[in-house]
Amino acid sequence: MTTTDLGLDEIHALAHAALSAAGADEANADAVATTVTNAERDRAISHGLFRIPGYVTTLKSGKVNGSADPRPENTTPVVLRCDGQNGHAPLALARCMGPLAEAARQYGVAVLSLTRSHHFAALWPETEALACQGLVGLTCVSYMPMVAPAGGKTALFGTNPFSFSWPRPGHNPFVFDMATAAMAKGEVEIAARDGHKVPLGTGLDAAGELTTDPAEIAKGVLLPFGGHKGSALAMMVELLAGPLVGETFSFQTQERDNGDGGPAQGGQFVLAMSPDILSGKDWAAQAEKFYEKLSAMDGVRLPGSRRHRNRGDAGKRAVNTVLVEKIQALGKGS
Amino acid sequence: MTTTDLGLDEIHALAHAALSAAGADEANADAVATTVTNAERDRAISHGLFRIPGYVTTLKSGKVNGSADPRPENTTPVVLRCDGQNGHAPLALARCMGPLAEAARQYGVAVLSLTRSHHFAALWPETEALACQGLVGLTCVSYMPMVAPAGGKTALFGTNPFSFSWPRPGHNPFVFDMATAAMAKGEVEIAARDGHKVPLGTGLDAAGELTTDPAEIAKGVLLPFGGHKGSALAMMVELLAGPLVGETFSFQTQERDNGDGGPAQGGQFVLAMSPDILSGKDWAAQAEKFYEKLSAMDGVRLPGSRRHRNRGDAGKRAVNTVLVEKIQALGKGS
Repeated sequence: MTTTDLGLDEIHALAHAALSAAGADEANADAVATTVTNAERDRAISHGLFRIPGYVTTLKSGKVNGSADPRPENTTPVVLRCDGQNGHAPLALARCMGPLAEAARQYGVAVLSLTRSHHFAALWPETEALACQGLVGLTCVSYMPMVAPAGGKTALFGTNPFSFSWPRPGHNPFVFDMATAAMAKGEVEIAARDGHKVPLGTGLDAAGELTTDPAEIAKGVLLPFGGHKGSALAMMVELLAGPLVGETFSFQTQERDNGDGGPAQGGQFVLAMSPDILSGKDWAAQAEKFYEKLSAMDGVRLPGSRRHRNRGDAGKRAVNTVLVEKIQALGKGS
Repeated sequence: MTTTDLGLDEIHALAHAALSAAGADEANADAVATTVTNAERDRAISHGLFRIPGYVTTLKSGKVNGSADPRPENTTPVVLRCDGQNGHAPLALARCMGPLAEAARQYGVAVLSLTRSHHFAALWPETEALACQGLVGLTCVSYMPMVAPAGGKTALFGTNPFSFSWPRPGHNPFVFDMATAAMAKGEVEIAARDGHKVPLGTGLDAAGELTTDPAEIAKGVLLPFGGHKGSALAMMVELLAGPLVGETFSFQTQERDNGDGGPAQGGQFVLAMSPDILSGKDWAAQAEKFYEKLSAMDGVRLPGSRRHRNRGDAGKRAVNTVLVEKIQALGKGS
C-alpha cells in the first residue's frame, strides 16, 4: 500500500476542507475534523480519515444537517437531553460533555441522552473527556444490523461499541472502547481492503457458515465476541442507546436510513459518575495499586495504553495515498 | 446423586434454621433464607442451599455480623451509601433497593454504594427488583482473586459478575447476570463435585496450562470469557465494585479475609435509571418489538428466560441429599 506522510495539522485541514466543501458549517466541520484528527493521532485509523468519505456522503445526500446547532437541556438536575438536530455527533458531544461533567461532579451521577445524532467515530473521546475531569465515564451507541445474536445467523445488532473510562490523576486515564462484535466493522473493512484474513469466530458468510475471509463476512454477518455473554452485552447496548434515550434499535435505524452508506441517525447513552462523591476514600491512590499489579504481569496490557503511546508521537502519519487523493478531490468540491 | 424433594417453604425453613443456629438474628436469617430460596425456586442451584454452609461458616467464625442493622443514607439526592455493618448482603439490599428506586424515579438516575457487605448470592435479585419497579438496573460485585487477566496466568480478578435488567411491563423483565469469568466459580465447583468436564478456555491448571478438568482449574485459575474484551469488563467490575464505592479490589479483599471459606467483605455497585425520564417516548412498546425479533430467531434465547420458566413451577425441588443432611445438622447447632 502506498502511503503519504501527513502532519496532524495537515490531516485536520484535509478533513475540514472536504467537510466544508460538502456543506458543513465551521462549527460542524471543525468538530468532525478534530475527532478524525485525534483518531489518526492515536493511530486508530479505522476511525480516522477512512471515515471522511462517509461523513461527506451524508452531507451531500442531505441525510445529515451540516448546520446543526445542538444544545443540551436538563430534564432533571442529573439528566441531560440533547436533540442532535440530525448533525454529525462531534459538535453535540463537544457541547454536552461539559454540562454532563458538571452535573456529575455536583450530584455524583448524571446521564446524557443524545438523540437524532449521526455517530461515525470511536467512543473513547467521550469517556476520556470525562476521565480527564476526574469522572468515571461509560457510553455506548448502536448502529445498523451487522451482528447476529449468539446462536442466530441473521443480523439484528449493530457492532454496538461500549466504552468505559477511569480517571488516573497524573496518568493517562484507563479507557477501553470495544465493539461487542467480535471485530469492529471498520476493522473488517480494512482487513478486506488490505487482503488480510480474520480469526475464525469473527463472523459468518452469506450461507451462515464460519469463515476467515473478511470479504465473505462483509456479505454475511458478524458475530458477538464471547458467545452468549457478548451477545447479552450487545442486547444491553441496543436497549441503552435505543429506547432508554428515546432513539431506535439498530433494526429500526436501518429501516429509517436512506442507504447512502454514511452514518445513520441514532442515539447515544453517556453516564458520568464522580468517585469523589461515591467513594469517600482515596480512590485514586487505591486504583494505582491495581494498575501496578496488572502492569507487573507478563502478557497483560492495560486497555488504551497503545493508543496513549501512539499519541505521544507528534510526528507525521502515513496515510493510504488513494484515500488522501480521494479526500483532496472531495475538498475541491468533486 | 441421591436427592431429596423439598418444597420452597421447606427450603426456606431449612436455611433459616441453620442461619439462626449460627447466630443470625431474625431479620438477617430471613433475608438470607429468602435469597437462597429464590435461587432454588429458579433452579439456580449454585446460589441456593449449596451456599448455606458458607454463610454459616462466616457467622461462626465471627467474620460476619449476624445482627447487622444496615441503613441507607443519602450523600446527594441521587447517591445512596450504605454501610453493610459486616452483615450478609441480603438485608442491606432489601433495605436499600426501595430508596434507590425512589431516587431514580424522581431524578432519572441514582447509584447505591454498598460497603462492608458479604455477598454470596446471584445479582439478578437486585436488578430484577429494579425492573419490577419500571427501572433499568445494573449491578456488579468483585470477590476474591480466582481469574487471570487475559494473557496472564495468575489470579487477580474475582469472577466479577455483572447483571443488567430492563423492565417489561406485563412480562418478566429482561435480565442477564453473568460472571465475567468464562464460568462462575460455583458452577466449576459443582462440575468438580459431580465429575463433569468443562469447556476448554474455562481456566488454567496449576502449571498455567488449559484443561477441561474443573478439579484442576480449582487448583489453578479461571479465565475471563471472551479474551481481552471480557478481561476489560472484569477490570471495569473491579473498579466499580471496589474503589468507586469505597471498597476493596479482589486482591485486597483476599488480603483482609480470614480464609474461613465463606463470603468475604466487599462492595457492591448498583445503578438505577428511569426510562420514563430518560426516554420521553413509549420505550416499553418499542422494546417489545426488539424482543419479538429476538424470540423469532431459531437458536436464540432471551437471557433469564430459563430462570423465569423454572420459577413458574411452584412444586418441590430435588436437592442433593448429602447437602440437605449437612444443613439439617447445622440447624441443630452442630
